[in-house]
Amino acid sequence: MSANDKPPAARPAHPITDRVREAMAVSLRGCDELLPEADWLAKLARSEATGQPLRVKLGLDPTAPDIHIGHTVVLNKMRQLQDLGHTVIFLIGDFTSMIGDPSGRNTTRPPLTREQIEANAQTYYRQASLVLDPAKTEIRYNSEWSDPLGARGMIQLAAKYTLARMLERDDFTKRFKTGVPISVHELLYPLMQGYDSVALKSDLELGGTDQKFNLLVGRALQTEYGQEPQCILTMPLLEGLDGVEKMSKSKGNYIGISEPANDMFAKVLSISDTLMWKYFTLLSFRPEAEIARLKAETDAGRNPKDAKLLLAREITTRFHDVTAADAAERDFNHRAQGGVPDQIDEVALGGAPLGIAVLLKQAGLAPSTSEANRLIDGNGVRIDSAAVTDKALKLGAGTYVLRVGKRKFARVTLS
Amino acid sequence: MSANDKPPAARPAHPITDRVREAMAVSLRGCDELLPEADWLAKLARSEATGQPLRVKLGLDPTAPDIHIGHTVVLNKMRQLQDLGHTVIFLIGDFTSMIGDPSGRNTTRPPLTREQIEANAQTYYRQASLVLDPAKTEIRYNSEWSDPLGARGMIQLAAKYTLARMLERDDFTKRFKTGVPISVHELLYPLMQGYDSVALKSDLELGGTDQKFNLLVGRALQTEYGQEPQCILTMPLLEGLDGVEKMSKSKGNYIGISEPANDMFAKVLSISDTLMWKYFTLLSFRPEAEIARLKAETDAGRNPKDAKLLLAREITTRFHDVTAADAAERDFNHRAQGGVPDQIDEVALGGAPLGIAVLLKQAGLAPSTSEANRLIDGNGVRIDSAAVTDKALKLGAGTYVLRVGKRKFARVTLS
Repeated sequence: MSANDKPPAARPAHPITDRVREAMAVSLRGCDELLPEADWLAKLARSEATGQPLRVKLGLDPTAPDIHIGHTVVLNKMRQLQDLGHTVIFLIGDFTSMIGDPSGRNTTRPPLTREQIEANAQTYYRQASLVLDPAKTEIRYNSEWSDPLGARGMIQLAAKYTLARMLERDDFTKRFKTGVPISVHELLYPLMQGYDSVALKSDLELGGTDQKFNLLVGRALQTEYGQEPQCILTMPLLEGLDGVEKMSKSKGNYIGISEPANDMFAKVLSISDTLMWKYFTLLSFRPEAEIARLKAETDAGRNPKDAKLLLAREITTRFHDVTAADAAERDFNHRAQGGVPDQIDEVALGGAPLGIAVLLKQAGLAPSTSEANRLIDGNGVRIDSAAVTDKALKLGAGTYVLRVGKRKFARVTLS
Repeated sequence: MSANDKPPAARPAHPITDRVREAMAVSLRGCDELLPEADWLAKLARSEATGQPLRVKLGLDPTAPDIHIGHTVVLNKMRQLQDLGHTVIFLIGDFTSMIGDPSGRNTTRPPLTREQIEANAQTYYRQASLVLDPAKTEIRYNSEWSDPLGARGMIQLAAKYTLARMLERDDFTKRFKTGVPISVHELLYPLMQGYDSVALKSDLELGGTDQKFNLLVGRALQTEYGQEPQCILTMPLLEGLDGVEKMSKSKGNYIGISEPANDMFAKVLSISDTLMWKYFTLLSFRPEAEIARLKAETDAGRNPKDAKLLLAREITTRFHDVTAADAAERDFNHRAQGGVPDQIDEVALGGAPLGIAVLLKQAGLAPSTSEANRLIDGNGVRIDSAAVTDKALKLGAGTYVLRVGKRKFARVTLS
C-alpha cells in the first residue's frame, strides 16, 4: 500500500459519553501535545463501547536504569491510562542497545550485553512499578521483531520513508545545515522505533516533547503497513527543585525515587510555592478539580505550606508507604524546629584531637577541607546546635552531633 | 577502525617490470578512468612478483538477461585482465533483485524469484562466456553474505558512511535539490554494493562511467573494514550504430550478441568510418599498435572498408565462429552487388491476389500497411530486384523474393 492510499482515520462512530469525555480530560492533563485529538477521542469512544482496551506504548532506552521523579511524569500518565482500563506496553529497546553506537563517535553508548540490558530493564521496571499497575503492564523487547526483519526487511522498511521527511527532524536539520556529519544508520533508528509501533499495534505512544518526531514516524509507518495509526502524546520535561533547569541527575536538582523517605519529603517541601502547582499537575494523582480548589484557597490566603505538605505526603507515600510518609513529616517538623532528625548517620573516627575541617571531611559532610572551611565561613556548620565560627577549632575525644546546612547530619564519635 | 585510520595504500614495493608496464597499458586501454593509477600499478607489480592473481569484480543486475555488444565493452576488459592471469568475479546481485523496488514507484523492477534470477544469470553467463574465459571466472551471488548481515549488520554497515558523502552522488544531489523524493532505502543500496567488495576482497571493480560513485563507496568501505581498498575502472558507454545515441535495445541501434552472423556482420559494416575506430578500441582484441598501424594506413588513403571488414570478421567470429564469419562476409558481398543473401526467411501466405502493402505486413517486412506504403514511397521495396513504385500493386499466386531497405529479405510463396 502506498503512502497516498491511507486507510480512513478513526472517526467517532461510537457515542461520546461522559465517561469518554472524562477519559479525554485525563489524557490531556498536563500533557504538552496530544495528536490528533479527534482520533484519540474516537479510539476512547470505541474502547468504551466495545470494552476493548487501547494499547499504550512507552519506549525505554535500557542504558540508564536509575530514575528520578522527573521520569515518572510519563509513567504517571501511563498509570492514569491504566486506571481507565487500557493496556500499557513497557517497550525495552534492546535491539539498538545491543548495537550501541556503531560509528564509535558516542562513547557514552557502548554496546550492552543481553544480561546488562535485562538487569537494567529489571531495575527500571522495579522502580516504575511504584507508579504502574503491574497487572496491566506488558513488557516487551523489540529484538523480538527487529532481528527477524533481517537485511531485506530493513531495506523494505527504509523504503517507506523519504530522506526529505527524515531531515525535517530538528536535530537532523540543524546538523545537516551546519555540516555536522550524520551517519546513514542514524536515519534507520527512527524507522526501527516506528516499526515497534507497527509490531505492537500501538494506539498511543507516549514520550517527552523531544520525542515528537520519532513518535510521528511510528504513526506514518503504521499507515504504510495498513494499520490504524497511533496517536501521540508528549509530556513536558519536569523542572528540577531549583525551578529553573530540567530535573537531572547531573544538575543535582532531582529527587531519586529510591531516596530515603525523609529526604524525599524534605526535598518536596524545598520547592518554590509557584513550582509546587506544576508538580501537582504532573506528579499528583489528585483530581484536577481538587487541585484547583487547593490553589484557590492558597491564593485566598491559606499557608502554601499546607498544600506542599499534602504533595510531599502523596509523593513520599507512593515511593515508600504511608507510615514512612508520617515519619518523614514528623522528622521534617522536628528539624524545622531546630531538632535533630530521628535517624542520622553514625560515624566513628580516630585521631583525636581533630581540626573541624578535617573532621567534616572525614565524616562525609564536606567534599574537601577547603569546602568545609567555606561552609564554616557561611555559618553553615553547627555542633550540638551551636554554630561553629572558628575554623581553627579542634575537637577532642567524645560524641558530637554535627549539622551542615539544613539537612545534613551526622553523629560523630571521635576517639 | 575509524575512517581517519586508513591502512597505508598499496605502494610499489615490487619492481615495475616491462610485463607490469604492459599489464598497465592493457588495463588503461579504452578506459574512462582507472583510480588510483598508482595503486593499481602497485597491485599489478605485487601480483607479478608473487604470482598471486588479483581479484576483479563486476556486479551484474540479473533483471535483463539479453546482452548486446555495448555490454561486452566491460566484459572485454575482464577478458583482457583474465588473459593477464587475474581472477574475474561475476557477481550476481540477487539480494536486491529479490527485493525489487520496495517503494513500488519503479514498476519495471518487480521482485524476482530465486528461479528467475538463476535463469537470468545463466542466460547472461552463457552469453558472457563468448567473451570471458570460464576457467578463470568465479560466479557469486551476493545474498551469500547480504542475508547473514541481518538487521544489525545493516545498521552497522550504514554507520560507516555519512549522509553528506552519499548525497555527493550526482543523481542524489540533483533529486535532493529539486525536491524529487529519495527513499531512505536508496541510500542503502550503494552500501550493499560496496559491502560486496568487502566480502569478495576485491582488488578492482569494473563498471560503466555511471557507476563511478558506487564503485568508490566499495573502496571506502573496504578501508573501513581494514582491507586494502580496491581500485576502480570505468569503461565508456558504447555508441550505437548511429554513432549518436548510446547503444540500447530501445533505440534499435544495437547489435545483439545472439543475432545471426549475417546480420551482425552487415551491421558492423554499416557504421561510420569514424565510429569504426572507437569500436576497434573497445571491441577488438587486436593489439593497440596494430590498430594504430591500420588507422595510419587508412588515413593515408587505404579504403576504410578494409579495416571495417577486419572488425566485422573479428566480432562475428567471437560470437559465432570463423566459418560463420566467412559465410557472412560472402553474403555481405553478394548483397552489396545487389544479390539475394544465402539464407532468407521463407514465408507462405494465402489470399492471392494480395495488395503489396498487406503482403509486406503479413510477411513481417513492415510493421503496418501504412508503414509499408511509406517504404514504397521511399523507393525502399523491391520484388525480385525490381523497385516497386505502385502502392496499388496486387500480386497473384506465385513465389517472390521481397526486399525492404538494404537488409530485410523474404521469399514469399503466395497461394
